[in-house]
Amino acid sequence: MTKNLVIQNGLIVTANEHLDVFTGDIWIKDDCIVSMGSTISPPNDATRIDATNCIVMPGLIQTHVHTCQTLARGYADHLSLLDWLKQLIWPYEATLTASDVAIAAKLAMTELVLGGTTSILDMGTVRHTEHIFQAAHDIGIRAHIGKVMMDKQEDMIPKPLQENTRQSIDESIALYKQWHGKENERLHYALAPRFSLSCTKQLLVETAQIARDYNLLIHTHANETLEEIELIQKELNVTHLEYLHSLGLTGKHVALAHCVHLQDIERNIIKETETHIVHCPSSNLKLASGIAPTPEYLKEHINIGIGADGAPCNNNLDGFWEMRLAALIQCPRFTAKALQTHQVLRMATLSGAQILGSTDQIGSLEVNKKADIIIVDNQNSHTVPQNNPYSTLVYTSRSSDVRDVIIDGKIIVKEKHLLTADTEETIHHAQEHANEIFKRI
Amino acid sequence: MTKNLVIQNGLIVTANEHLDVFTGDIWIKDDCIVSMGSTISPPNDATRIDATNCIVMPGLIQTHVHTCQTLARGYADHLSLLDWLKQLIWPYEATLTASDVAIAAKLAMTELVLGGTTSILDMGTVRHTEHIFQAAHDIGIRAHIGKVMMDKQEDMIPKPLQENTRQSIDESIALYKQWHGKENERLHYALAPRFSLSCTKQLLVETAQIARDYNLLIHTHANETLEEIELIQKELNVTHLEYLHSLGLTGKHVALAHCVHLQDIERNIIKETETHIVHCPSSNLKLASGIAPTPEYLKEHINIGIGADGAPCNNNLDGFWEMRLAALIQCPRFTAKALQTHQVLRMATLSGAQILGSTDQIGSLEVNKKADIIIVDNQNSHTVPQNNPYSTLVYTSRSSDVRDVIIDGKIIVKEKHLLTADTEETIHHAQEHANEIFKRI
Repeated sequence: MTKNLVIQNGLIVTANEHLDVFTGDIWIKDDCIVSMGSTISPPNDATRIDATNCIVMPGLIQTHVHTCQTLARGYADHLSLLDWLKQLIWPYEATLTASDVAIAAKLAMTELVLGGTTSILDMGTVRHTEHIFQAAHDIGIRAHIGKVMMDKQEDMIPKPLQENTRQSIDESIALYKQWHGKENERLHYALAPRFSLSCTKQLLVETAQIARDYNLLIHTHANETLEEIELIQKELNVTHLEYLHSLGLTGKHVALAHCVHLQDIERNIIKETETHIVHCPSSNLKLASGIAPTPEYLKEHINIGIGADGAPCNNNLDGFWEMRLAALIQCPRFTAKALQTHQVLRMATLSGAQILGSTDQIGSLEVNKKADIIIVDNQNSHTVPQNNPYSTLVYTSRSSDVRDVIIDGKIIVKEKHLLTADTEETIHHAQEHANEIFKRI
Repeated sequence: MTKNLVIQNGLIVTANEHLDVFTGDIWIKDDCIVSMGSTISPPNDATRIDATNCIVMPGLIQTHVHTCQTLARGYADHLSLLDWLKQLIWPYEATLTASDVAIAAKLAMTELVLGGTTSILDMGTVRHTEHIFQAAHDIGIRAHIGKVMMDKQEDMIPKPLQENTRQSIDESIALYKQWHGKENERLHYALAPRFSLSCTKQLLVETAQIARDYNLLIHTHANETLEEIELIQKELNVTHLEYLHSLGLTGKHVALAHCVHLQDIERNIIKETETHIVHCPSSNLKLASGIAPTPEYLKEHINIGIGADGAPCNNNLDGFWEMRLAALIQCPRFTAKALQTHQVLRMATLSGAQILGSTDQIGSLEVNKKADIIIVDNQNSHTVPQNNPYSTLVYTSRSSDVRDVIIDGKIIVKEKHLLTADTEETIHHAQEHANEIFKRI
């Protein structure tokens, strides 16, 4: 039976190409938006949500997260990228059991949807990726998920994380077959080679080929820190982007997290191949990586998404925080006009959808798109007065202002409560698992 | 009759000199902490607040805010400091009526206390300062407040904001006499010359003298942007701090907001005179001013407080945001070890108290200090797992996690609801007043 849902009387920030904003209603039939406006006529028996004094907008899309890392929140402060990986994150990932991964992903997705993120591009760890899919299945978030691929046999990588090229590829394909397109196409597989320093050339070449064969997204890290860039350049004798490009790891189906430091030749490759960048401002600050010059990238028409990265390098998974920070940190270098607030909001909506190849489905509120919608309380002592909804959403709103979250037409969060899992239980288990993990390592 | 209040079973982050943390209870008698520990014996009829799964800590102290500016939130984006002042903030302040100032201050203080800030150093505008005091009186926040002093007759300053030296001083003294030490010493006067570009030398010299005569704090802006510094240096032919020092505007009773850019000679003056710096990271980013090198200042034993500045340059008044940002933004320049989280928490607690000359009263949880205490919910999907309470508070907690706020022994916020004013009414009036103000200017 068709389900009808109507969101009434909200300030609708469509985040579409024309940046339309209006006060009105949205009619959702099953998983899709069928009508929007101030005079729509949904059936009388439709479920109604009052959005008076709220902003209604597309759910946030975070195109670089590591949900499996969430149990290391607060355990990995004050380290720069490579030390952070070697001293903490790899040993952490190496010790993760299937149930650790399950609870880490569940905790992350609880935080994410409660904070208004409806869609993620997630990089897992080497194993137990099925538990991340299962968590996304259960919580109801829209997700592209991939197991980490890392087949270089190096001393710095703990034994349990070492895999050979064949295993890495075979497991990726098996996960693809099991999960891709499942749940009304809410779940997708994305290939996730960790980064060039942990992957053989063979793995990267084969990954590029599989991506073409199966029409899959590739999600990897690139040019995060100067230290990493130097190591890669020393090993390969070309810039990192030239290397990736030569292996087939550039293009409209490739999302490169970070790109804090790019040489001109590398920017050109990204621009010409329409490769995507995912900006992670908190993580780039906390790991001392630097500040990606996003205003320059945007001027060159490079598409930029946004992501909180992982809890141990952030220490939140808060899309509103990332937007606010993305807007603020550019000003000292590029003036107070560095980025317009609607440009920043776009990173977390339509540009994210572009990375996921889903602009026909998500990223803006438009008729025939999926109903991935959040309702943000707008009447708080910290959000009034209001002048411009983009300014409000980017500079002022908090993820705790998110009142209701609808994904694929289903109400996932209602009045700030998650409906699809027991948050208290998740919190309790998460702390227990973290205690055990850090006893082990 | 004595009132007894007990906060039970919280994780008590004392923020004292020894950084003591323990699980236990706090007994408050009237306005003061009389006992703390795991085995205290308050009377049976004491009011009890359960703080299980919460962090109990001193209320945040923000030592640079402009509560009167709150109605311009969201109306002043994408401008650098001097344009922001000339094009928006001065015209805004020039048009403010007494009731505008009253509602702006009430809105700000509502946001502040709901977000865990229990004490502020506030700079008003030229007039209507009594309404800021009245708002602090009504809301119950602890406050040092001063009218802005700006007696330079310059074209760029709107007529209604121009005052002569005598008026400026006389009104300051009158306000001091009316409010200083009132409400069980919860309200204080602080002299507030705006900044050197808007004050005559005579005003600054007289202000310095009054500060000595009346034992008052001086609260001003200094070295916020390179543009302002250049203008001052051109006019005076010495560095700004040399100028302030020569006029008597340095010392333990002087709080300089910003100090983003300081020459060595200026740092030395600040260090040797024990003048305080107030760090305002959001504001410094948003106005494109720069990033104050706080790790260097701390190494030189300069005392640093923290503040959100005003809503139009932030756009929040959120102490947790400022702490998080203060921690993150130093890493690209000073490594991931730039600042320890307890150092950042201190900026917002004991160092703030030091600026206010109140370390014997506030800034940490200690027996015989005032009961300015906040209870922060610690069991959320975005705050677990927890490893280190300073990391949790600085990187992870949100102002919306603040559950209860006690100021001067009184419960001001209970279960996230303000008890001392009608928040809905404040929000409603604030939007109405803002609409009117921006119709006028």
